Amino acid sequence: MTTDKQSANNPVFERRESEARSYCRGFPTTFAKAQGSIMTATDGTEYIDFLAGCSSLNYGHNDADMKSALVEHITDDGIAHGLDMYTEEKAKWLEAYENIVLKPRGMDDYKIMMTGPTGTNAVEAAMKLARKITGRRNIISFTNGFHGMTMGSLSLTGNAGKRGGAGGGHLGDVTHMPYEGAMGDVDTLKLIETMLNNSSSGVDAPAAFIFEPVQGEGGLNAASKEWIQGIAKLAKEHGALLIVDDIQAGIGRTGKYFGIEDMGVEPDLITQAKSLSGFGLPFACLLIKREHDVWKPAEHNGTFRGNTHAFVTGRVALEKYWADKDAMEASIAEKSQILEDGLKKVAELIPNAYLKGRGFMRGVDVGTGELAEDICGRAFDKGLIIETSGADDEVVKVLAALNIPNDVLKRGLDIVLEATREALNENKKIAAE
Amino acid sequence: MTTDKQSANNPVFERRESEARSYCRGFPTTFAKAQGSIMTATDGTEYIDFLAGCSSLNYGHNDADMKSALVEHITDDGIAHGLDMYTEEKAKWLEAYENIVLKPRGMDDYKIMMTGPTGTNAVEAAMKLARKITGRRNIISFTNGFHGMTMGSLSLTGNAGKRGGAGGGHLGDVTHMPYEGAMGDVDTLKLIETMLNNSSSGVDAPAAFIFEPVQGEGGLNAASKEWIQGIAKLAKEHGALLIVDDIQAGIGRTGKYFGIEDMGVEPDLITQAKSLSGFGLPFACLLIKREHDVWKPAEHNGTFRGNTHAFVTGRVALEKYWADKDAMEASIAEKSQILEDGLKKVAELIPNAYLKGRGFMRGVDVGTGELAEDICGRAFDKGLIIETSGADDEVVKVLAALNIPNDVLKRGLDIVLEATREALNENKKIAAE
Amino acid sequence: MTTDKQSANNPVFERRESEARSYCRGFPTTFAKAQGSIMTATDGTEYIDFLAGCSSLNYGHNDADMKSALVEHITDDGIAHGLDMYTEEKAKWLEAYENIVLKPRGMDDYKIMMTGPTGTNAVEAAMKLARKITGRRNIISFTNGFHGMTMGSLSLTGNAGKRGGAGGGHLGDVTHMPYEGAMGDVDTLKLIETMLNNSSSGVDAPAAFIFEPVQGEGGLNAASKEWIQGIAKLAKEHGALLIVDDIQAGIGRTGKYFGIEDMGVEPDLITQAKSLSGFGLPFACLLIKREHDVWKPAEHNGTFRGNTHAFVTGRVALEKYWADKDAMEASIAEKSQILEDGLKKVAELIPNAYLKGRGFMRGVDVGTGELAEDICGRAFDKGLIIETSGADDEVVKVLAALNIPNDVLKRGLDIVLEATREALNENKKIAAE
Amino acid sequence: MTTDKQSANNPVFERRESEARSYCRGFPTTFAKAQGSIMTATDGTEYIDFLAGCSSLNYGHNDADMKSALVEHITDDGIAHGLDMYTEEKAKWLEAYENIVLKPRGMDDYKIMMTGPTGTNAVEAAMKLARKITGRRNIISFTNGFHGMTMGSLSLTGNAGKRGGAGGGHLGDVTHMPYEGAMGDVDTLKLIETMLNNSSSGVDAPAAFIFEPVQGEGGLNAASKEWIQGIAKLAKEHGALLIVDDIQAGIGRTGKYFGIEDMGVEPDLITQAKSLSGFGLPFACLLIKREHDVWKPAEHNGTFRGNTHAFVTGRVALEKYWADKDAMEASIAEKSQILEDGLKKVAELIPNAYLKGRGFMRGVDVGTGELAEDICGRAFDKGLIIETSGADDEVVKVLAALNIPNDVLKRGLDIVLEATREALNENKKIAAE
Repeated sequence: MTTDKQSANNPVFERRESEARSYCRGFPTTFAKAQGSIMTATDGTEYIDFLAGCSSLNYGHNDADMKSALVEHITDDGIAHGLDMYTEEKAKWLEAYENIVLKPRGMDDYKIMMTGPTGTNAVEAAMKLARKITGRRNIISFTNGFHGMTMGSLSLTGNAGKRGGAGGGHLGDVTHMPYEGAMGDVDTLKLIETMLNNSSSGVDAPAAFIFEPVQGEGGLNAASKEWIQGIAKLAKEHGALLIVDDIQAGIGRTGKYFGIEDMGVEPDLITQAKSLSGFGLPFACLLIKREHDVWKPAEHNGTFRGNTHAFVTGRVALEKYWADKDAMEASIAEKSQILEDGLKKVAELIPNAYLKGRGFMRGVDVGTGELAEDICGRAFDKGLIIETSGADDEVVKVLAALNIPNDVLKRGLDIVLEATREALNENKKIAAE
Repeated sequence: MTTDKQSANNPVFERRESEARSYCRGFPTTFAKAQGSIMTATDGTEYIDFLAGCSSLNYGHNDADMKSALVEHITDDGIAHGLDMYTEEKAKWLEAYENIVLKPRGMDDYKIMMTGPTGTNAVEAAMKLARKITGRRNIISFTNGFHGMTMGSLSLTGNAGKRGGAGGGHLGDVTHMPYEGAMGDVDTLKLIETMLNNSSSGVDAPAAFIFEPVQGEGGLNAASKEWIQGIAKLAKEHGALLIVDDIQAGIGRTGKYFGIEDMGVEPDLITQAKSLSGFGLPFACLLIKREHDVWKPAEHNGTFRGNTHAFVTGRVALEKYWADKDAMEASIAEKSQILEDGLKKVAELIPNAYLKGRGFMRGVDVGTGELAEDICGRAFDKGLIIETSGADDEVVKVLAALNIPNDVLKRGLDIVLEATREALNENKKIAAE
Repeated sequence: MTTDKQSANNPVFERRESEARSYCRGFPTTFAKAQGSIMTATDGTEYIDFLAGCSSLNYGHNDADMKSALVEHITDDGIAHGLDMYTEEKAKWLEAYENIVLKPRGMDDYKIMMTGPTGTNAVEAAMKLARKITGRRNIISFTNGFHGMTMGSLSLTGNAGKRGGAGGGHLGDVTHMPYEGAMGDVDTLKLIETMLNNSSSGVDAPAAFIFEPVQGEGGLNAASKEWIQGIAKLAKEHGALLIVDDIQAGIGRTGKYFGIEDMGVEPDLITQAKSLSGFGLPFACLLIKREHDVWKPAEHNGTFRGNTHAFVTGRVALEKYWADKDAMEASIAEKSQILEDGLKKVAELIPNAYLKGRGFMRGVDVGTGELAEDICGRAFDKGLIIETSGADDEVVKVLAALNIPNDVLKRGLDIVLEATREALNENKKIAAE
Repeated sequence: MTTDKQSANNPVFERRESEARSYCRGFPTTFAKAQGSIMTATDGTEYIDFLAGCSSLNYGHNDADMKSALVEHITDDGIAHGLDMYTEEKAKWLEAYENIVLKPRGMDDYKIMMTGPTGTNAVEAAMKLARKITGRRNIISFTNGFHGMTMGSLSLTGNAGKRGGAGGGHLGDVTHMPYEGAMGDVDTLKLIETMLNNSSSGVDAPAAFIFEPVQGEGGLNAASKEWIQGIAKLAKEHGALLIVDDIQAGIGRTGKYFGIEDMGVEPDLITQAKSLSGFGLPFACLLIKREHDVWKPAEHNGTFRGNTHAFVTGRVALEKYWADKDAMEASIAEKSQILEDGLKKVAELIPNAYLKGRGFMRGVDVGTGELAEDICGRAFDKGLIIETSGADDEVVKVLAALNIPNDVLKRGLDIVLEATREALNENKKIAAE
């Protein structure tokens, strides 16, 4: 079935694009346009988007206000690329970020580093800075963590397949510890504490801890407030920096702007990317507590730091969606409840299935990657873009836009439910044969 | 003097942007608009751009055709972000690249990997792939080479200051060899050959050689055809891949589309970034000889691979500038002659100064970083954006747009000449005191 | 008090010997002679030896039969050093080892590699071989493990102080896992299994597991049969080699020749050193299952492999002590009971103290390193050589010769008891003041 | 032919000893006794020893005075093993070393670290100390250098086969530079200086330089006084320690006690092993300039540091051979002349052959490993033990005892000459066929 669609695609993809290509394989059609939470293929088929560019489109596609601001900027010969020179648009974005994000959250103490415009670059900058500051090399990351594909970030990443891509390059100087819940009933905080407090454990004193508040690629494992505070405490006690990798869980995804907001911790470094531009444009930054901003000029540089188009759309995103923090949080909370209700129905169909994630970053662990992929495949055929997640792809994950209309959200959830029913029936049939 | 201008800048930069910021320090004003080879500050001052986003704006700022295509795309709700799904715009870009870049150059054998949209990500992908293919770890890079700031690329980079930024993280599995000319009269090819042919040299069999045809950050050292062929031969003899890092030297900068074009070598991997989008948008790719495309799906993934806006502008760039290859090369050659003539006049003013680089990627080694910075500072005050390069910043480097009008180019060169005269006079005065 | 004795020592030690010197600091006298379990200082003071060269003198000092064989060998111009050429003495030792050690234990399948004559060299050879065989890099070692001071072995070692000695050199490619009991009630086998079975744990597939049956330096932690079998099973399931580091726990120390004897596991590699020569001479070897003996000639070489004097004494040791396996094991068991009884009395004096170790490798965890050192210091003043062990030196450890006369053993234990009483009284006095 | 002899050997070697065994393969007989420069096989065949335990038997086998001292020590129950406790014999050795070695050479400023009793352990200790002191990681070693088989030392070693034995373990943090003469006419000092002075060379600031005065395994390359001084100067200028690995070239081998004696350099660290015991017993130490002795107690420890038997024989060796420095040097010089004369005759037989090495550490580069091995094989059949050396085994190397009687030396040289003639004739015959 998918074969037909695939052959409908332009053969140039097969002919020219590297085998490394990925998402296109799960959604075998060619897309032409997108508006809000709807993507449209060249053949006119419309798809509800429950993937949102892996959380890079938290405000949906082509938001009208960002669009018009960007078109105006381009039309007026606004800077498209200015390295990291001072520009009007950078100033405006910084002011918006300061006033709308930092100050209302008591975070006046943070500075912003324009790293290369990808999440992995922000992570690499954070690693380098933590090592530079502490003079230590070891960084503690967590099972099922995903932090990027460049050699530094990849060393933090748990996934064996991704690690294998390094072809034997060095992925060391990292201790991988179990995330909350990764050991069943075992208190992983206690376990980490025991290893760190034992001076003969072989775990070298850490430069930093890095974790995702909710593990997006790792299966929507959501750490509790207690666990996050425990990690923050351990970091402080052991002279290590606390790095929050908020690339997938941040910018409203879990219900608040930051994935660790209101959790009573004060990270030393926070990485941001994905939805930072609001429009899906490449943009990333590293928040640095003022005292840690010990970079020398150009010590970590790069060509595309501070994407000016992204400054334009990113500023509009802040002004439009976050100026009224309470309204935004209330809206996400409302949609999160709809999401939870819808996913509960899905989970009820499957023995032992259960909900994962937090806020508007939820999914269902359906037990096996095969079933999850079957569900997502069937959902696509019914007009829904949705992906799996987890070490064995066992979680059906929903990353809808934060501003998805309620009816579209419900329609998407209905498709998931229907696809699940079909997949289970098909399985039963096969089992019966 | 610069202080005044600096204070005219928005204080938000100082207050909020990390100390890592760099280019803004050399050009202490705030930019508002840019067209072609002219950048305009908020106070209305116009600057000729001899930096071109470090070669990311080879077609100048806001090219009219790219601009209108991009505005149309946005207005029509074209995809802004589609992960690496199949899109119409990706297909069109791939076809343009195939027909305008690859086929006319006998390079039908290459596939294209959409890496993260930064040069360093393309380099990291190349390193990983070379190690994966050969099962070896060592990569040979060169003195004064610059390949990026993430841990893999940084291990290839020569600059001690940049390397120090890693804070003690692992920068190994690389053998740094002298680039052509780096040892005075010594034949560095011979030297490398001797090390590789000695089975007790301690230099482990390499997975790859990686070099820049002209070293942009390293001081505009330009390798000869003979040397490049020698490296290619050594790579082949030792079972290593040949990686050409064409990020700064490529896309017309040295006079042809590729920095190693017509040099009789067939690299296994070629990195591209900077001017790939034509418009200064983040975009990078890795060219891979078909036989080497052994990536598994998603083995090296990322969020912003295949920036759709960049596909739009990048396609227009190819169609507009490179469809007529001969005309384009002739035009660059003409401007290169003007550049050479202008820089010769500069060099003649300074004892022992000499020209460096190749094609439209030229500069003058003025002897010391102090003099070079003095010249560039004075040039800025006269309305020219120009940077230094080299291990000690001793080279005044010109990276003008390939389509800079001849008169603007000449005007800029006159400013360099005048700034040099002034700097030398000032020096003499100081020496006399 | 110790100061007086120290000043009685030859000042050449202080003047010339590096600050790295260690054991001499705890036993501040100069030794002249030694016989059986008695060491005699230059001033005639006799000391009972409860350290036995850290298990290198399992048959005591200057065993009469080894002594006469060695003197005869030397007198007759027997080879002293023959690199690893074939010698009569090597043949005789190999035959004795084959007939007395391997065959009676059903270990006909092992070959013997003469590594450099130190434990650390045997460990390094094992690491290299495991990586060579599996093509993997990661090795799993355990908290509180001690495997040596050269860079490979040190990477396996847990102790932070020792690791610090590497001065920032690479100690990676090792995952340090908790040893049995290192996490309180947590089932560490389960924990390790969970990490290995999670393909996103970040713990790379291991080349080998390496563990000590009883951790000599790490505090006399003794692994159970179940745990050891569990590790062996995990190793097999994950395609990793099982390396038993039997350097301190082997050669009778735990009651049988091997520390893992009769535990139902078949290690791929076993390291031996310390008491291998029987006489305290430097000698080490690596037992290799025949299928794993894939070394190329000289691939791991060295000057002092196969110490010929050690072959002479080592052969006598096997023939004298192990030809009658049952008698030897019965004798060790008897002495082990005396040791246990004696240490129980010590433990009863101290709140929360408890016995550690197994067989004739026992000690008492007295709670703090200060108390343990106080006890050992007082014991020395009373004529007993005894050391602490453990991450915080909190264990008073007994490593007496396997053939120590029962009355000498009891006398030594009485001294420990008396020293403990004194130390506790002194503590009480201080606390009362 | 050799097959017959091999089959005469005890089959236990083949059956039980690991394939890693090496020297025995070149000398296929079983040795029973040895005296001075003569080794005797079990079948009574006598062999002149031109290998001297690879320089571990610089005073020949079983020197009468060392022998009687050692027998007396053992008979009297002298300490055989005392860890690194203070012993009478250690004091005596230290005093002898101080008075006979250090003071007469103006080296009162050195302290002595008893490392594990193998050369590689001394090298590892030196590496760790240099990194600890400088806080840097990179160490510069040289092409064709050989420093040992444990992971630290192996990282310094050039030989690809040996490095391969690490099975993919980390051999980094070392820059391998060309030794004097390794690049033909190229001034390698200049080359190293250029790399170090270029802050963008990618060669990180070194913690140390380590080199062998004459490369024993690497083909008897002998560095000149000028080169050695140049390296010492570079080390000083770049804040790096100078480590002389004198394991094979030291203890008289090049004509003086140290391989760098009278060369006007003052190394920070000097490794010694091989002939340090005088008798072929395992023994090694690290000389440390007093200011660098920053080890904490036990920071680099080990079981067999300070082999007491070796203290006994090592002291006798110093007293007997080096108390009269001039006489010893004159004697070596005389024998060195005989050696040179003999090897010249060999070299004259072979087109393009030439002498290598220095002092009593000489050989002939015969052009190919095949010819060198043919010569050595024929020499063995004629009663001479002699080995090849060099990256391709192309050097016939003589490492005779320093006290070999002149007539035995000449007899051995005659055998080499005769073996060479035969090998060349055989080659001609084969070529003619």
